[in-house]
Amino acid sequence: MSATSDKPNALAARLISLLGDEAVFWKGYDLRLYEYDAALETARPETVVFPTSTEEVAAVVKLCNELDVPFTARGAGTGLSGGAIPARRGVLVCFTRMNRILEVDEANLTALVEPGVVNLHLSEAVRHLGLQFVPDPSSQRSSTIGGNVGENSGGPHTLAYGVTTNHVLGLEAVMPDGEVVWLGGKTATPGAYDFVGVLVGSEGMLALVTKVLVRLVPLSEHGATLLAAFDSVAVASKAVSAVIAAGIVPAALEMMDRLATQAIEASVHAGYPDGAGGVLLVDFEGFKEEVEESITAVAAICRDHGALQVREAASQKERALLWAGRKGAFGAMGRLSPNFYTMDGVVPRTRLTEVLNGVDRVSEEMGLPIANVFHAGDGNIHPLVLFDEDEDGVMERVHEAARRILELCTQAGGSLTGEHGIGLEKQGMVPLQFSAADVEVMRRMKLAFDPRELCNPGKMFPTPGQCLELTATGSRLSGW
Amino acid sequence: MSATSDKPNALAARLISLLGDEAVFWKGYDLRLYEYDAALETARPETVVFPTSTEEVAAVVKLCNELDVPFTARGAGTGLSGGAIPARRGVLVCFTRMNRILEVDEANLTALVEPGVVNLHLSEAVRHLGLQFVPDPSSQRSSTIGGNVGENSGGPHTLAYGVTTNHVLGLEAVMPDGEVVWLGGKTATPGAYDFVGVLVGSEGMLALVTKVLVRLVPLSEHGATLLAAFDSVAVASKAVSAVIAAGIVPAALEMMDRLATQAIEASVHAGYPDGAGGVLLVDFEGFKEEVEESITAVAAICRDHGALQVREAASQKERALLWAGRKGAFGAMGRLSPNFYTMDGVVPRTRLTEVLNGVDRVSEEMGLPIANVFHAGDGNIHPLVLFDEDEDGVMERVHEAARRILELCTQAGGSLTGEHGIGLEKQGMVPLQFSAADVEVMRRMKLAFDPRELCNPGKMFPTPGQCLELTATGSRLSGW
Repeated sequence: MSATSDKPNALAARLISLLGDEAVFWKGYDLRLYEYDAALETARPETVVFPTSTEEVAAVVKLCNELDVPFTARGAGTGLSGGAIPARRGVLVCFTRMNRILEVDEANLTALVEPGVVNLHLSEAVRHLGLQFVPDPSSQRSSTIGGNVGENSGGPHTLAYGVTTNHVLGLEAVMPDGEVVWLGGKTATPGAYDFVGVLVGSEGMLALVTKVLVRLVPLSEHGATLLAAFDSVAVASKAVSAVIAAGIVPAALEMMDRLATQAIEASVHAGYPDGAGGVLLVDFEGFKEEVEESITAVAAICRDHGALQVREAASQKERALLWAGRKGAFGAMGRLSPNFYTMDGVVPRTRLTEVLNGVDRVSEEMGLPIANVFHAGDGNIHPLVLFDEDEDGVMERVHEAARRILELCTQAGGSLTGEHGIGLEKQGMVPLQFSAADVEVMRRMKLAFDPRELCNPGKMFPTPGQCLELTATGSRLSGW
Repeated sequence: MSATSDKPNALAARLISLLGDEAVFWKGYDLRLYEYDAALETARPETVVFPTSTEEVAAVVKLCNELDVPFTARGAGTGLSGGAIPARRGVLVCFTRMNRILEVDEANLTALVEPGVVNLHLSEAVRHLGLQFVPDPSSQRSSTIGGNVGENSGGPHTLAYGVTTNHVLGLEAVMPDGEVVWLGGKTATPGAYDFVGVLVGSEGMLALVTKVLVRLVPLSEHGATLLAAFDSVAVASKAVSAVIAAGIVPAALEMMDRLATQAIEASVHAGYPDGAGGVLLVDFEGFKEEVEESITAVAAICRDHGALQVREAASQKERALLWAGRKGAFGAMGRLSPNFYTMDGVVPRTRLTEVLNGVDRVSEEMGLPIANVFHAGDGNIHPLVLFDEDEDGVMERVHEAARRILELCTQAGGSLTGEHGIGLEKQGMVPLQFSAADVEVMRRMKLAFDPRELCNPGKMFPTPGQCLELTATGSRLSGW
């Protein structure tokens, strides 16, 4: 296939016969748009398809089986670990045209949606019923619910409401051999193995999800936001631990460090105090009295921990502005540096200070500024490594910084990813967290679903060139 | 092996050499105590072992692999689906001596426990810290946390707090080949495939769990209970739907029908009104004002739906008594009948009335009284089929009633089990809910974990004699 060819290759021709001309991209300049997501790695698909129904997805998968061609699902391409990158090329199955809300069941508090529905669109569509879809990744204006399912996305409200898996009741999926299955349903518990749980967070490697039955949650009566500014992230982290230890579970508990705060202020003018080394945003939802009681308690804890400023948003408008700062943090990084690399790791809350001090050391050693924006309540950190890709040899330092930061997380008893997956990006680091026996079980599960390894191959598992060796059996891992 | 033999058989002798004499049962009269759980089926193990450490569990599993002998985990034996019955005999691994609380981490709100810890003991051990372990099956005074993990147990508080899987952060497990793995940890999200989610609810068929890292939840500031009595379960069910549709999520929402109410009153004297056809217990937890506001709203909804009586428990003592009635419901059945069979199915909340009417019809057609006690808020029903095992041919009618009831559940879009699993009891009914393709995926996953099929074999999957046939490949299912 050549970028200048004006005839579809054989694969594209077969796909066109299944889905029609408009639903298949095969020209080089079209494909170029689909070779990346929000991670660093890229790989160009041979063909991109835009199915509009489960039947079309199943037909594509069956064709891929016939031709022994890999296939990879893609939502909006906002993932940070390369989950939507077609690492072994083949067909990229783009779900953006399967974006219908099929049913809203008010009595059972559920919605049935296609995977291409944008996260925020669902909440907007049910707001007049007093309902919402809770998972709120920062990408919620563009990321799709299918992508959220693939990566088990979280967001600021994970603290009180859990991650995507806590809000998915059922799934329709096309298995890697093209069979269509329906898992879970409108009941609290699915019965038999928890397949919905298995598929949520499986990074598109076990099946292609074609319908999602999600839980809808009533909007709260009242909401309020507290801002607390501290000298440093270390002091602010102690306040966070004290809040949780006091038995208070805010709806969200987010933190930004000095660098992030400066960038946000310059870009969003969110009203964060000048010169703060650590800014906490604490959100509360519930009954008015409950919210007021909690906010008073958290404000007192913050003052006891030497906060420079503690301020409750005086209006819903001010509240929205404070949150616009947090949600605009990644975008604001452009003020600081031409490029940035968003990391995603998790540590036990009580180890936050120690890990963040370590991140500071990594920043110094690698000569790369690192801003920190994170879900402090969950211990889910997002160090933003700032760099200029035009600088010679900078990518090695960026990767080394990333590696060291994730090492800090796993050494503190944390995990390699909070909400963005292992994907392509972190395969080499899997041994930092998982033993050979753990990886062996994962591999067996992958092969149970996808024995031919056509479904988003080349992800999650360390490859021989990286940190471990495959023995002759092809399944028992060893060497590290 | 004979019940009268006074020498351990070869298997028992090997196990004694691993665990010591006191930790191995092999005599007929000892084994007889371990041939049943709370289901109808029985099967006698060849040997029962009582390990006290992960290493001992791993040693037992490795020996079983060496000798090609099946092994089955058992907690307190309170399960209703035969999950702890050694269907293919072999070694029963009884976890009751692994009952230590290893760590309570107040700052991270977690506890690390061995699987034999009794559910309620954990909450009692952390109450002085203002904390609790939320999953509260009716069996919580005897059932173990390991058993809760195996069956993904729920309880009255499932409505507001979720089932066991929502409260398990990490697991140590001995894989079916004897390897020890650690899954998950003290962070909100595990990274990679959700293995904790896979193991929770896998009915002891994928691995033996040896440590459980659970979430602890702060006790609420205030709690209150509302009792509402109605003419019939049908009317009460409408009130339940109206409560949920109003966006109110009580901590628990339980219902009992006329027969159950009568039995409970005769046995527990819980103060349920005479002659009520449906009694609702609604529990609220949270801040005082929130609880009071919710209770007023729910009381109004119940009155609007024609409740015969609506009463808030006037004291914590009365509240405890109302709940003692609900929790003592199963025990109270002895007043009505020498035997009863507890069913466990789930239906979408909105289909409750129709399914319960169907259960009434089944009762008439089979000539068996059926009492109903259920988690109305979740749609998890527990019909109690009353019978006298001395009556000739009654077991066929009991099984037929069970089959028809679960058919009603699945036809209404529900599932075969809410919190007790498929086990031995419901294997034949799996095709009511799952397609051949669904079962094929389950089987592949089972084999990925347990290729030799030694770990609690003979459960969950329909057997050839039942509803489907295995083809020559041994994995592709067909025939139904």
